[in-house]
Amino acid sequence: MSGRLTIIGLGPGDERYLTPEAHDALQAAEALYGYDAYLDRVPAREGQTRHASGNRVEGARAAAALDHAATGADVAMVSGGDPGVFAMAAAVCGEIEAGPQSWRTLDVVVVPGITAMLAVAARAGAPLGHDFCAMSLSDNLKPWDLIEQRLNAAASAGFVIALYNPISQARPWQLGQAFGCLSRHLAPSTPVVFGRAVGRSDEAVTVTNLGQANAIRADMATLVIVGSPETRVIARDGRAPLVYTPRAAAAVTA
Amino acid sequence: MSGRLTIIGLGPGDERYLTPEAHDALQAAEALYGYDAYLDRVPAREGQTRHASGNRVEGARAAAALDHAATGADVAMVSGGDPGVFAMAAAVCGEIEAGPQSWRTLDVVVVPGITAMLAVAARAGAPLGHDFCAMSLSDNLKPWDLIEQRLNAAASAGFVIALYNPISQARPWQLGQAFGCLSRHLAPSTPVVFGRAVGRSDEAVTVTNLGQANAIRADMATLVIVGSPETRVIARDGRAPLVYTPRAAAAVTA
Repeated sequence: MSGRLTIIGLGPGDERYLTPEAHDALQAAEALYGYDAYLDRVPAREGQTRHASGNRVEGARAAAALDHAATGADVAMVSGGDPGVFAMAAAVCGEIEAGPQSWRTLDVVVVPGITAMLAVAARAGAPLGHDFCAMSLSDNLKPWDLIEQRLNAAASAGFVIALYNPISQARPWQLGQAFGCLSRHLAPSTPVVFGRAVGRSDEAVTVTNLGQANAIRADMATLVIVGSPETRVIARDGRAPLVYTPRAAAAVTA
Repeated sequence: MSGRLTIIGLGPGDERYLTPEAHDALQAAEALYGYDAYLDRVPAREGQTRHASGNRVEGARAAAALDHAATGADVAMVSGGDPGVFAMAAAVCGEIEAGPQSWRTLDVVVVPGITAMLAVAARAGAPLGHDFCAMSLSDNLKPWDLIEQRLNAAASAGFVIALYNPISQARPWQLGQAFGCLSRHLAPSTPVVFGRAVGRSDEAVTVTNLGQANAIRADMATLVIVGSPETRVIARDGRAPLVYTPRAAAAVTA
């Protein structure tokens, strides 16, 4: 009997964002694997084993889950946000490619979720309303030069830019340097959104601009959106401003 | 009393993708506005009025919903996928900016949804596992030259590229031309995913490569993902291949 590995996106952290497909997949699994902070979001169920691991062992976690599924079990890998966006689905695929042939016979299912940039964008208005890109600012797995090259390409071509993994204790300077890099292409008035922990009790979404954006406002739970030259801010008395990028674009102005 | 306009993402089309937040917002609304094909997905509820409109009247639809909300009503705008990605949230913001001051006093809420690229990527493996961009190929609202400039920038910087609105009866040549443009930067072996109607009964996801990608495989309901030089395909006996982009990147090879 062939086993199954389901890689499940929990969304940003509140049950209101958990799709019925993800809910059902969590219920069906015999065993749950995941980073401990994500597993903590899933209520315990009798007869279901739990295998928590730390933040930096994606490959080993994926291999352990694949090994377990290869015994014929129905195993789930739990991921925050969407598992396909800077998360566990690519790690699982990487282990399958490098691993034993038996892992290629497994039923591998990816269950999508609301990724952070969609949740943050929803809170701010519609900053991703036109062409945009998503980048990880972590230089643990790619050289910083490549990150700067992509920031330059994206900003000068007029993409809105969503920045995942903007900062951590081990990577304190990268976000500030990214703002500096983008400032060579974009005006100081370009809207910037910091979205932290959307959908959780400590949610905080702030709107500023590139000239005033301060990297120390961000932490590991923050998603940063930097507008394009087309992105606009609508001020509203007594309400948060709306940030949006119009569906129509005339030309690149940067 | 201030009215409310909630802009709701239904996801790709199956109830399994509808978040509890979106479900509750649909229930709460007194009136639903939307493109008729999206409204058709929402079960009727007694006492809730429905205001369907055609595919190309986003601005007028947004204005009508804002007018209705300004009477103090709880109004919902229904959108496919995520309302913030090439959809109604930006259209509503545009109308608010151009419209009467009273529209700025409304409670405007965006409810995120699973956007097409996440659903298609989940079916294929993890093609969006590293830096990527999302572009609309429609030149109704921006010049084609700008689209080519962005394709060139994204491909040469090593982004995976998700193409929304790849083709329609009125825009028959754009996707083929985009493949030609990308072929100047990317090898013929670069993986390409066509994902059509994911989560619906007529779902079809096919994996090919840039050298063999044929634009006539796409229609209005298709989302196309073009890999980066890092994107890989894992062949599996008796199963669909897995397409993924590793989390680690060494350098731009294009």
